[in-house]
Amino acid sequence: MDVSVLGEFGLIDRIRRSVGKDIHRDVLVGIGDDCGVIEIGHDKLLLFTTDMLVEEVHFSQKTYTPYQIGWKALAVNISDIAAMGGLPKHCLVALGLPSNLSTNFVDELYKGISKIGAEFEVDIVGGDIVKSRFLVINISLLGEVKREYLKRRSEAHVGDKVAVTGTIGDSACGLAILQDNREVIEEIKGHVIQKHIFPYPRVREAQVIRGLANSMIDLSDGLASDVMQIAKASSVGVNIFIDKLPISPETRMIAEVLSKDPRDLALYGGEDYELLFTIDEENLRRLDIPITIIGEITSRTQGLKLIDELGNSEDLVPKGYEHLTGSN
Amino acid sequence: MDVSVLGEFGLIDRIRRSVGKDIHRDVLVGIGDDCGVIEIGHDKLLLFTTDMLVEEVHFSQKTYTPYQIGWKALAVNISDIAAMGGLPKHCLVALGLPSNLSTNFVDELYKGISKIGAEFEVDIVGGDIVKSRFLVINISLLGEVKREYLKRRSEAHVGDKVAVTGTIGDSACGLAILQDNREVIEEIKGHVIQKHIFPYPRVREAQVIRGLANSMIDLSDGLASDVMQIAKASSVGVNIFIDKLPISPETRMIAEVLSKDPRDLALYGGEDYELLFTIDEENLRRLDIPITIIGEITSRTQGLKLIDELGNSEDLVPKGYEHLTGSN
Repeated sequence: MDVSVLGEFGLIDRIRRSVGKDIHRDVLVGIGDDCGVIEIGHDKLLLFTTDMLVEEVHFSQKTYTPYQIGWKALAVNISDIAAMGGLPKHCLVALGLPSNLSTNFVDELYKGISKIGAEFEVDIVGGDIVKSRFLVINISLLGEVKREYLKRRSEAHVGDKVAVTGTIGDSACGLAILQDNREVIEEIKGHVIQKHIFPYPRVREAQVIRGLANSMIDLSDGLASDVMQIAKASSVGVNIFIDKLPISPETRMIAEVLSKDPRDLALYGGEDYELLFTIDEENLRRLDIPITIIGEITSRTQGLKLIDELGNSEDLVPKGYEHLTGSN
Repeated sequence: MDVSVLGEFGLIDRIRRSVGKDIHRDVLVGIGDDCGVIEIGHDKLLLFTTDMLVEEVHFSQKTYTPYQIGWKALAVNISDIAAMGGLPKHCLVALGLPSNLSTNFVDELYKGISKIGAEFEVDIVGGDIVKSRFLVINISLLGEVKREYLKRRSEAHVGDKVAVTGTIGDSACGLAILQDNREVIEEIKGHVIQKHIFPYPRVREAQVIRGLANSMIDLSDGLASDVMQIAKASSVGVNIFIDKLPISPETRMIAEVLSKDPRDLALYGGEDYELLFTIDEENLRRLDIPITIIGEITSRTQGLKLIDELGNSEDLVPKGYEHLTGSN
């Protein structure tokens, strides 16, 4: 069986079962959340995450500058740390470089990494440089969180509201307009392309949400796919209200030009790097940052449902971006 | 200028200068040693390292089974932790997989990682799986060391003896015989191929050496290249005695069949994953594990010298394996 048949999530489940039990008692969370979690002090937890970006899979030199690739490579890791309630601290940068790549390209790549690193106070403490037939960039990032603030995927409770930060679908819309260069007003196009090229991880928002929410994940693979991860890990069901999705006016406008349904971009598009979290009603009232309620946690037997404005429900199919099949 | 002109080490120097000062005061060692080093307690240091292996650059599916690739991918990281005196603890595995790769391949890869992981008590706590045009495996590893036992490249002193564990050149010899399949007695061939395919990091030896040595590095790029790293970081010179190099009888025998100079394999071959360290004479007498003295630290102005059995000296050219030029 090819790995593309099993898909990324199937393969992760398979690996988790085969790898077996952890050896060290200090491993609080192993394979299957945004980060590995390791106890390093009475009250202090270490968060440990890694992301690989491959040329022509995650980016193309046609649409990304090296600076932008560097920014994004660290941004996606920072987002994983934020999703568990932590602050990012130290990273390693491993690069697979074609021999004919210019040193200027590498300089610019590092400028992008350093820029977002400075923004979120992340140090580059080492790495690896090897030869490769095409560009591969793999950043590993350490972060920290106090034990009481750790947020996992697996703690959603029946009755919780489901909420997101920011707007969703912009990144997928930005990618679509980059690939299909229609006539769109420059400022409108710029907004969604910016969201695709320069994801800005919600570290500050996460610091507020973590004290009040029950579970959290970052939106990397698409809302449908990521909400399924919470449902699965927490053994619950979920209702998502399709008319509540926070979709920007820019994405609605461009989707129309491209004859796409903006709700599809929001549900299945991925790479928004917003936070998706579940929170009980009492804590929701105490949360004083802008968020949007998009659904509610139900019991496991009720499954994953998408509810329209008339109250009609259909199954929510978690067809977010699958890294191994490469399909939406 | 292409990155291959500057080479791996030139590029690392360039990056180190451009990245600038660390933001966190808890970074004890940044870019340029085997691991990044971070303070996490009064006396406890975190070691953080990463290595990327790329298909057809670091291994070929023609000569490596997936199990062997997995073993090696973690082994090279464990060796970096050992080189700084630490014990390996937790790792992340990032995989770039071609869509048509079999799930069985991934199972075997993880069996290799898990096997050496169990041997050295390393937990796999997460990772990433993405699509790639060819196989890329990037493992990031955390380790720990007490502050007093941390060994760096930069603490070699004039007068120190230079020593290595085990034998050197076997791995390069193993690779050579894999690539040039001459008639050699199976057991002899097996010995050097085993050293190439299944590097066994010197964690236990490092635990003894760390309390006595002044500086340490693992032999990954080749003795000439790695000893230059110590000389450069410590601002010292070094004499290496060519007739003292610990070369196994197997490597001598196969080198003759292949018309290669075994001393070249030992000096420039790389991937031995033995420890290279410098130690003063008094501590050397207290070291009770098998090691070989191969040289001595001199003053910086004396440079890097290779001394033959007659006392003739020539410059030691650090032409170990260069990852970006891919040449020896």
